[in-house]
Amino acid sequence: MKLASFEYKGERCVGLVSEDSKSLRRLNLDAGEAGRGVAALIGREDLKGFVQERVADELSMADVRLQAPIPRPDRNIFCVGRNYHAHAKELSSSVFKENDKNVEAWPIVFTKVPECVVGPFDDVVLPVGISSQIDYEAELTVVIGKQGKNIAREDALDYVFGYTIVNDVTARDVQIRHQQWDMGKSFDTFCPMGPWLVTADEVDSSNLEVSCKVNGDLRQNARTEDFIFDIPTLIETCSRGITLYPGDIIATGTPAGVGMGMKPPTYLKSGDHVRIEIEGIGMIENKFV
Amino acid sequence: MKLASFEYKGERCVGLVSEDSKSLRRLNLDAGEAGRGVAALIGREDLKGFVQERVADELSMADVRLQAPIPRPDRNIFCVGRNYHAHAKELSSSVFKENDKNVEAWPIVFTKVPECVVGPFDDVVLPVGISSQIDYEAELTVVIGKQGKNIAREDALDYVFGYTIVNDVTARDVQIRHQQWDMGKSFDTFCPMGPWLVTADEVDSSNLEVSCKVNGDLRQNARTEDFIFDIPTLIETCSRGITLYPGDIIATGTPAGVGMGMKPPTYLKSGDHVRIEIEGIGMIENKFV
Repeated sequence: MKLASFEYKGERCVGLVSEDSKSLRRLNLDAGEAGRGVAALIGREDLKGFVQERVADELSMADVRLQAPIPRPDRNIFCVGRNYHAHAKELSSSVFKENDKNVEAWPIVFTKVPECVVGPFDDVVLPVGISSQIDYEAELTVVIGKQGKNIAREDALDYVFGYTIVNDVTARDVQIRHQQWDMGKSFDTFCPMGPWLVTADEVDSSNLEVSCKVNGDLRQNARTEDFIFDIPTLIETCSRGITLYPGDIIATGTPAGVGMGMKPPTYLKSGDHVRIEIEGIGMIENKFV
Repeated sequence: MKLASFEYKGERCVGLVSEDSKSLRRLNLDAGEAGRGVAALIGREDLKGFVQERVADELSMADVRLQAPIPRPDRNIFCVGRNYHAHAKELSSSVFKENDKNVEAWPIVFTKVPECVVGPFDDVVLPVGISSQIDYEAELTVVIGKQGKNIAREDALDYVFGYTIVNDVTARDVQIRHQQWDMGKSFDTFCPMGPWLVTADEVDSSNLEVSCKVNGDLRQNARTEDFIFDIPTLIETCSRGITLYPGDIIATGTPAGVGMGMKPPTYLKSGDHVRIEIEGIGMIENKFV
C-alpha cells in the first residue's frame, strides 16, 4: 500500500493512494490520529484490514496538498553519512577528510532535528547569511514499524514498516566547521520527505534506482545494491544498545553526484528545483527559495 | 524556584522544592500535564503566580522518587563536545584527534536521543558486549523557555527557562568508531538528569563549580567561567537557522577529568557510583549496573 499524509480543506488527513497515483481515498480517522499522519497507522495489527475498513471518499491528487508521511517524527532522524562507494570517493578530500579511511569499518550515523521535515513539494528555505554552500542528497529512507533493541541483521527487515524518500539537505560549510554534522543538516525546512510511504511488503529495497535532478540535469543516479552497508546492517547498528521505536526514521545515505563533488563545487541557489526519484517509491520535487 | 518531576504513589507529579530541599509541595495539575514533568510549566505567563496558586500537599523528599525534570524531551538533546580548555587538552590525542585544532573556531554540537534520559538517582545500565569503555561527563545543562531562531548572544539568556545537571554518559569506543558521536552517546539510560530544574532567575550560570566523584574520588572539578564558549554563544550557535523550542535542552560540555583522560584510561564498571554536583543546582548520583 502507498499511504499518504495530506492537507485537504485545511485539515490534515491520511489516505490510501491509488495504483496509478492519480487519486487517493481518505481514511476515516479522528482528528488526533490524522494529525500524526501515516504514523497513526504504524503498529496496527491487520493493517490492510484496518485500511479497507476505514477508506472513505476518493479525492483527486490534484485537490490535495501532500505532506510528509511522518510530518513530525518523535525524535531526530537517524542519517547515514557515507553509504555508497562512489560518494565516499567524491568527498574523500572534503567532508570525509577526517574520517576513517576504511569505509567499511562502521557506518557513520548522525541526526537531523524532527522539525526540519517538510512536505514532498514544499519549498526549502536557503539560510541566507548563515551558509552559502547548500547541497542536496537523495536518500532512500526506512520507517521503523515496531519496537526493538539489539536487532540482529537477519531479523531486521521484520522491523521495517515501509519506505519513503528524503532529501537530506546539507549546509556543507556548517557541516564541516562544527565537525559534528547535526547542525549543518538541521536547518528549518532541510528535510523534504515523501511523496508517501510504501509499505515494506511492496518494496525490495536491496536494489532500487535512486536519482536526483537539479533543474532537469541528472546529478545523482545509482542503485541501492551499491550500498556499503545494507539496510539490515543499518538497523542492526542503530539498535545496538539503543531502543528503536515505531515511527523512527533512518535515511540510508546518498549516492555520488552531490554539488560539493562537482568541479568546481556547485551549490543550490534561489529558484533551483531539486527532483528526487526512487524506483518503486515515487518522486519528490522542491524549489529552493 | 526549584521545580521537580517525581513519582509518588505510582503517579508522575510536579512539585516546588523547599529551600532546604528536604520536602516539596505537589502542584495541582491534571494527569496529562503532570505527565510532561516540569515541561508542563514552561511558557506560562506569571509562572510564580501559577505555582503559588497550584501548590497543594507537602511531601517529604524521602517519600518520593525524583525523576528527570524533563522526563522525555520532545527531540534529541543538543550536547556540546569540547567546552573546557583542560578537557580539550586531555582528549586531544583520542576523541578530538580528528577535530579542528583551533578549539575556539566553532562549538562541536552533537545529540543524544530523548529516550536515554533517566532520573537523577536511577541506575545506568552498562551495554555489556557492545562497549567496554563507558565514561562519565558532568555537565551544566540549559533548558530553553521560549521559541526562537537566530537568537543574538546579547538576548540569549532571555530564552533560558532554567538549569539542571546531566551526566552525558559516553561509550568511548562507540563514539570514536562511528566518527559521528550520536550513537556512542545515546544508549538506553545514558542521560541521568536532575535532581530538579532551577529557574533562570536564581542562577548566575557564568561561574558555577562543577564536580564529579566516582566512588568518592574527585575526578572532575572546574568552574563554568572556564567555558570555551559561554552559554549565550551556545544558544546563538544552536539557533542559527534552526528554531529552538520551549523544552529544548543544551548540555554545555564537560570539564577535564574524564576516565578516558586518566593514565591509564579508567572506565566505569558494574557497581560504580558517579556523583555530580553543581553549585546552585544540586546533586545527582547514579549507580552503574
